[in-house]
Amino acid sequence: MIRKEIDELFKVLREAQEKHAAFTHAMGILQYDQETVAPEESGEGRGKTMGLLGGLDYEVMSDEALRKAVDTLLAAKSDLTEDELREVELLHKNIKQLSAIPQDEYVDFIVLVDEAQVAWRKAKNGNDFSIFAPYLEKIVETNRKFAGYYNKELKPYDALINQFEEGMNMEILNEFFQKLSDGLRPLLEKISQVQQVEDGFLRKTYPALDQKAFSYEVMDIMGLDRKRTILGETEHPFTENFNNKDVRITTHYYENALESSLYSVLHEGGHAMYELNVQDKYNWTVFSGGVSMGIHESQSRFYENIIGRSFEFTKVLLESAKKHFPEQLKEVSHEMFWKAVNKAEPSLIRTEADELTYAFHVMVRYEIEKKLIDGSLQVKDVPEVWNSMYEKYLGVRPSKDSEGCLQDSHWSGGDLGYFPTYALGSAYGAQMLHTMEKDMPDMWKSVEKGDLSPVTAWLKEHIHKFGSYYKPKEVFENACGKFDAQHFVDYLTEKYTKIYGL
Amino acid sequence: MIRKEIDELFKVLREAQEKHAAFTHAMGILQYDQETVAPEESGEGRGKTMGLLGGLDYEVMSDEALRKAVDTLLAAKSDLTEDELREVELLHKNIKQLSAIPQDEYVDFIVLVDEAQVAWRKAKNGNDFSIFAPYLEKIVETNRKFAGYYNKELKPYDALINQFEEGMNMEILNEFFQKLSDGLRPLLEKISQVQQVEDGFLRKTYPALDQKAFSYEVMDIMGLDRKRTILGETEHPFTENFNNKDVRITTHYYENALESSLYSVLHEGGHAMYELNVQDKYNWTVFSGGVSMGIHESQSRFYENIIGRSFEFTKVLLESAKKHFPEQLKEVSHEMFWKAVNKAEPSLIRTEADELTYAFHVMVRYEIEKKLIDGSLQVKDVPEVWNSMYEKYLGVRPSKDSEGCLQDSHWSGGDLGYFPTYALGSAYGAQMLHTMEKDMPDMWKSVEKGDLSPVTAWLKEHIHKFGSYYKPKEVFENACGKFDAQHFVDYLTEKYTKIYGL
Repeated sequence: MIRKEIDELFKVLREAQEKHAAFTHAMGILQYDQETVAPEESGEGRGKTMGLLGGLDYEVMSDEALRKAVDTLLAAKSDLTEDELREVELLHKNIKQLSAIPQDEYVDFIVLVDEAQVAWRKAKNGNDFSIFAPYLEKIVETNRKFAGYYNKELKPYDALINQFEEGMNMEILNEFFQKLSDGLRPLLEKISQVQQVEDGFLRKTYPALDQKAFSYEVMDIMGLDRKRTILGETEHPFTENFNNKDVRITTHYYENALESSLYSVLHEGGHAMYELNVQDKYNWTVFSGGVSMGIHESQSRFYENIIGRSFEFTKVLLESAKKHFPEQLKEVSHEMFWKAVNKAEPSLIRTEADELTYAFHVMVRYEIEKKLIDGSLQVKDVPEVWNSMYEKYLGVRPSKDSEGCLQDSHWSGGDLGYFPTYALGSAYGAQMLHTMEKDMPDMWKSVEKGDLSPVTAWLKEHIHKFGSYYKPKEVFENACGKFDAQHFVDYLTEKYTKIYGL
Repeated sequence: MIRKEIDELFKVLREAQEKHAAFTHAMGILQYDQETVAPEESGEGRGKTMGLLGGLDYEVMSDEALRKAVDTLLAAKSDLTEDELREVELLHKNIKQLSAIPQDEYVDFIVLVDEAQVAWRKAKNGNDFSIFAPYLEKIVETNRKFAGYYNKELKPYDALINQFEEGMNMEILNEFFQKLSDGLRPLLEKISQVQQVEDGFLRKTYPALDQKAFSYEVMDIMGLDRKRTILGETEHPFTENFNNKDVRITTHYYENALESSLYSVLHEGGHAMYELNVQDKYNWTVFSGGVSMGIHESQSRFYENIIGRSFEFTKVLLESAKKHFPEQLKEVSHEMFWKAVNKAEPSLIRTEADELTYAFHVMVRYEIEKKLIDGSLQVKDVPEVWNSMYEKYLGVRPSKDSEGCLQDSHWSGGDLGYFPTYALGSAYGAQMLHTMEKDMPDMWKSVEKGDLSPVTAWLKEHIHKFGSYYKPKEVFENACGKFDAQHFVDYLTEKYTKIYGL
């Protein structure tokens, strides 16, 4: 195929990608608005608008001219540059995936999810699972149906997992979780037999307004560009990004838990850092944004835990915190602070779990999702099963659903198959650290001084800048070699042995 | 035409109106997001998305099938119900207006305005008119061109005025402002010769957070439904509405000016009340939302001034304020408070001007806009002319443009011809009060008890519920008879005579 012809076809591709970016941008802002400020009764109007925009987006991506252009280019593979080929292939995959779902079902799902978010918030606030249950039923049912559309060859739940982490499946995950469980249970057991660390000072009163000022300082220390990143407040913290110049993170201030918002900011800030560092040229293309949920979580948990809860960086954080809370923290030493924010203890809320018990929270969700999708668990039985599994895995039992199966917004957001990526992300991150330490033996000296620029530069160079150009497995292996969960088990074992003097 | 045929054509109309509502909703949210929280560098992405949505909206409204349906229905007038005919006629007018502007120019203007808002904010913050000037030049030029598209028969500035207040023109306005000037100047003169009222207590420190809590209480006293209305914070207060279940008002807290945010909340709350009370059935139709800027301002200024600064209601406001600011207000009596919030004194900032001098602020903008549009004033000369006119009309001269011609966001929002409606609104409101007092001789007794429900019920019944069904002149005259600015002059004369003991 001649160059001129290729360029013409690429114009069609680019226009579609720009339109798709604009529709997802508008829908994303509507959703962000809903999560942050929209009035309670605004749902009907937003549902209509989301439905229309979702429908138009669908039309763009399933347009016959676009499909033809993609097919023609794919048939002329050998005439394309490597970048062009990747763009065509990824677009082809996305189109196939999207157009696999009938338009009316796609639009209905957008509207369903919008309503489900409202119902979930009501259910959580009122601690009443029955408000959310009918929506969850529809979401499970739709996901099961969509799984078949995505990939008939795979088991339904595997097809869903693949939406978030290409190449992942239950076989790998079952083994992965088994390895974590085997490696970490004995550690948790040992900790339960020694003196628990002291974290009472974190329960003093930390006014929300001061926490807010502290959060901005933490963002600055992280090196987040505040001209491109805003911090909002929501029930459940999240990151939303539209392009590499417009990223939003949110947090939730609990006045008697200093560490809660602090580590939300570091976590969401890690997601934001990934998005901000994607190359400019990928904006409004299929390569924009992080490549997968697992890789994304590796970044958020890297800043939250591997850096944020390290001995070196907790020194920097405490110094900053003392400026905002001189009274509350005046008798707190660096070592006390470091130990307190690393306290390992089975608990109810995933987002506030420590690094060690975190994987068990994910396991509960993973097991429940598998069963919801294969039909062996009914939605109405979720609260009971959830509570029993918490007792089994973590030894604690929620006394109300708002602290149990209603705590997270993922299901109301329509996402099943997402949770496992949280645990994967932690394990990816530990292996990245392993590689990073070999590349930069002095990295912790910079971190200790509050300078994260070498760390961020490494992540940008090896992970961030590629956006979605490489597949998750490619980008990870290019940076760190073959994935091995043992790095994560080793990392935690070394860390907690020190903290608890085991 | 047979009923079935009419119904078929109306389906086309309704679908277009719903799509139009969805696009303006999405664009409105993007704009609201920009005004409230969006990161500084988010402009490029938003510009692209706004451009696309604006273009699609344009396509919907200029669609050939829609135009044909409208024309066919217009040709069969006598077969339509009165409601149907009004819907077709209003839609016909809107389509004509919109399709008068070539699509590329329409889209360019949306993008221009988005960028201009960012430039204006920078210019105002940095007190540097030159940052905003090139955008204002383009906005003036575009408005002049659009005026010709809207209506070639009218003088350009009259065509612009008609966008905001159908039926209004410079001839009527010149006379109107003359009447106000003649009636109010002697009053202002007299006030300048007697003892000024004491308002020093309003300059104490009123923490923003406490003002926020007070604002929510004021919203509750007003009877604003907070499930359908949110309060945000912006540089310049405004109201944005998407349908009668999703209205947003904003305010700005100045810690040393209690009255500033209080009266912004009452003002924007008045706009919101109008929108919230439009009948449900008008949502997503051409009848949704208030009918004109003048009628809208009559509502905002009714709640802000006529109610909000009345002797009766200031009693209620002070009682509420004392709960939030017991220390600052402990020695303030009802009479002191009433007089302080009605202090008449020439000043620089329009939004903080008293009822009496307010019209003069509008006059400055009116005169400048007329000259910008007829070409007798260059943008670069705006600051100097602005300052001189303030000296002439009000006897005060801004020392910097951020307190002068950069103070308002209307021009950066692309709107010329809007300002006069502010003064008109006040005059409409005074005549509404006149009628209301005749209909409900006891109304002030309810107001004094903090019960605005009879006032709101009257406004809902005579103004709000109709949305855009009636033209501005119709809705006003149905409620109050022929418009006469003398009511406003009388109202102010009586009020200020009491306050200043003239």
